[in-house]
Amino acid sequence: MENNIHFEVKESLLKYKNELFKSISAERAKIGYYDLPFQDISPFVEFEKGFSKDIENIVVIGIGGSSLGPKAVYNFLKPVKKFKRKLYFFETTDPLNIAQLESKIELEKSHFLIVSKSGSTLETIALFKYFLDKCKKEQFSFITELDSPLAKLASSMNAKIFEIPKNVGGRFSVLSSVGLVPLVLAGVDIASLLNGAKKVYNSFFEDGYLKDTLLKKALFFAKNHQEYNINLLFAYSESFKYFVQWYIQLWGESLGKKQKDSILNVGVTPIGLIGPQDQHSFLQLIVEGTRNKTVSFLKIKNFKQELKVPKISLDFLQKLDIINDISFDELINMQSDSIKEALLLQDDIPVDEIIIDEVNEEAIGKLIFYYELLTSLVGILIDVNTYNQPGVELGKSILKDKLIGKAD
Amino acid sequence: MENNIHFEVKESLLKYKNELFKSISAERAKIGYYDLPFQDISPFVEFEKGFSKDIENIVVIGIGGSSLGPKAVYNFLKPVKKFKRKLYFFETTDPLNIAQLESKIELEKSHFLIVSKSGSTLETIALFKYFLDKCKKEQFSFITELDSPLAKLASSMNAKIFEIPKNVGGRFSVLSSVGLVPLVLAGVDIASLLNGAKKVYNSFFEDGYLKDTLLKKALFFAKNHQEYNINLLFAYSESFKYFVQWYIQLWGESLGKKQKDSILNVGVTPIGLIGPQDQHSFLQLIVEGTRNKTVSFLKIKNFKQELKVPKISLDFLQKLDIINDISFDELINMQSDSIKEALLLQDDIPVDEIIIDEVNEEAIGKLIFYYELLTSLVGILIDVNTYNQPGVELGKSILKDKLIGKAD
Repeated sequence: MENNIHFEVKESLLKYKNELFKSISAERAKIGYYDLPFQDISPFVEFEKGFSKDIENIVVIGIGGSSLGPKAVYNFLKPVKKFKRKLYFFETTDPLNIAQLESKIELEKSHFLIVSKSGSTLETIALFKYFLDKCKKEQFSFITELDSPLAKLASSMNAKIFEIPKNVGGRFSVLSSVGLVPLVLAGVDIASLLNGAKKVYNSFFEDGYLKDTLLKKALFFAKNHQEYNINLLFAYSESFKYFVQWYIQLWGESLGKKQKDSILNVGVTPIGLIGPQDQHSFLQLIVEGTRNKTVSFLKIKNFKQELKVPKISLDFLQKLDIINDISFDELINMQSDSIKEALLLQDDIPVDEIIIDEVNEEAIGKLIFYYELLTSLVGILIDVNTYNQPGVELGKSILKDKLIGKAD
Repeated sequence: MENNIHFEVKESLLKYKNELFKSISAERAKIGYYDLPFQDISPFVEFEKGFSKDIENIVVIGIGGSSLGPKAVYNFLKPVKKFKRKLYFFETTDPLNIAQLESKIELEKSHFLIVSKSGSTLETIALFKYFLDKCKKEQFSFITELDSPLAKLASSMNAKIFEIPKNVGGRFSVLSSVGLVPLVLAGVDIASLLNGAKKVYNSFFEDGYLKDTLLKKALFFAKNHQEYNINLLFAYSESFKYFVQWYIQLWGESLGKKQKDSILNVGVTPIGLIGPQDQHSFLQLIVEGTRNKTVSFLKIKNFKQELKVPKISLDFLQKLDIINDISFDELINMQSDSIKEALLLQDDIPVDEIIIDEVNEEAIGKLIFYYELLTSLVGILIDVNTYNQPGVELGKSILKDKLIGKAD
């Protein structure tokens, strides 16, 4: 994994590097996600070993932090991996989506994972009831905090329960049971996934290459978060489609906050783009629009998929013979490089570039942990509580009142 | 279709309504998309009638404005419609995506639509060559400007050509041949689609309900585009997943510009959200983050899909019995209303709400034309050329140099 930073970070800012590193090192003792790369995965591996071969579908019922992580990893690997079982994600109360997705699944050959940290997520419980009505109790397992109401219910059903540690927040939980259980059942190499995360952890905390890079990038993003209040992640492969969704939750929900001991609303808005498609959609706004955006390019060094543009010369289109015989993987990365260079020529758009080696478990594990660390660092610097989300409660309580009013 | 505006638009601003209406009425004579609802669709309908019943797949090769529109309409209708033929969209040079998508399609039962306004879009020509190498010439039809190199090539191949009018820009072209050809082949009722657009056109240009609403909304968005430089479209149904992508291109590429006769970079950043999922991802940032966002909710009045939460009381989760026996369509709209009310209580987040009647062709036709009009209005007010995209050229020319350098 490489991360090339093309913006200048001033000396006056870099002097805070040590202090920032101390702060995150202190936070590490309290916040759970830092330890996840080092956990014992044998309970997950054993669970999969004993799992019925007749089960072809794993149906994840969860929303937000309970689904975005495993969905990102699963879809990232999809083009290169022969899975043992298919994963399906029920994440919405939209009846059209529920009916359409359900029609694709043979329920008898499915096992359901009910995933909710609090154990009382409204959408998740609604969908759980919906499928409990149609399936056998034995078809359900649970992923939740150990003392949640859902865990108690699961115990009373004699169902399997996997713990989400209390100090691991939903959006930081992909490397906990939340991600590992569905992914191991799908046949993902979860040891490699964690190994990727471990490598980034070590590089950052043990004076490796990423320490300097991440600190610099975080200092720049935080210092300029009012001017550059939008961060674009411009990912050059359709495989990142759901990874950028995961990033959006991680970044937006962690950093969009009232500051601690202040009345100020702060935060940076995350946007995920997929190249080259979004060159034909969003690029114009980046190049000529308001200067409030940083851009992080994300590239795959080796796609390991040898497809070429055939050597065909088309009448009237001979000018495009320059793409003949080029491999698509080379072409897409040349596209990314060209856009990067075009933005650098603007000279007031901060740009950096992340390159992963290939599409596999280790690479996505690295990327996940890289973004988690970056989020934590920026959170410290803009003085917010990175790990809570008090802003979502009001809507929930209004809904509750409406539902009680209706039930009366 | 309803549009309820919950922010106050001051009298001092409303006095510009007439002038704005005059400007857009003048623009109407030059810009092509305004006429599309009234075009003769019989050539498309006839084409479909004569089309081979053996063709099961329509493969659209296009990117940006050449794919986002039909993709949005097709996916919007997917949960409620039995299509005549399936649509597939090849939009990227990502070799993993090409290989994965290709593996799903029987090429012999497929017909290809090569869609490019200029007729020389690099990605599209690369993919065209790729499939031309594997298929027969008879399997291709073309959608392009009449004098483009692609049209000339198509003529020399004796292939069918559908015109994209010169004065209809890519991102405003969904109601032209760009959308209508693939959609009619899929079995979409394109007359209803245009009829929806016509109703919005008439309501706006002939003193109907939408005239006042759209003018007000545009005046507010434009006047405050520096403070509220992000527009969120928060759509409550998975069916809108690709519609919001279409909106993002329309809004971002039209309004992210250097001002006419000025050196200023302006524009508003579009973000598409899907509810309720993004309540668990992006909502925190809206409620507590920087106050730089307007929020437009988008709801479906009648889902016509009767699914209910079963009347099951779960031990330890009896508190959630309040959702028992509620239909999912009612639940999702109560969720949307609750979040809307929560945002209104913040009193510094401008909110409006768009409600469509149901999921059908007319509704999406209305929505498309509504957003096209809104975009044009804001473009006039912030003094940009809504219909060009000069900012994307630099990246293209850098890529060309790289490709020529490589070929040499």
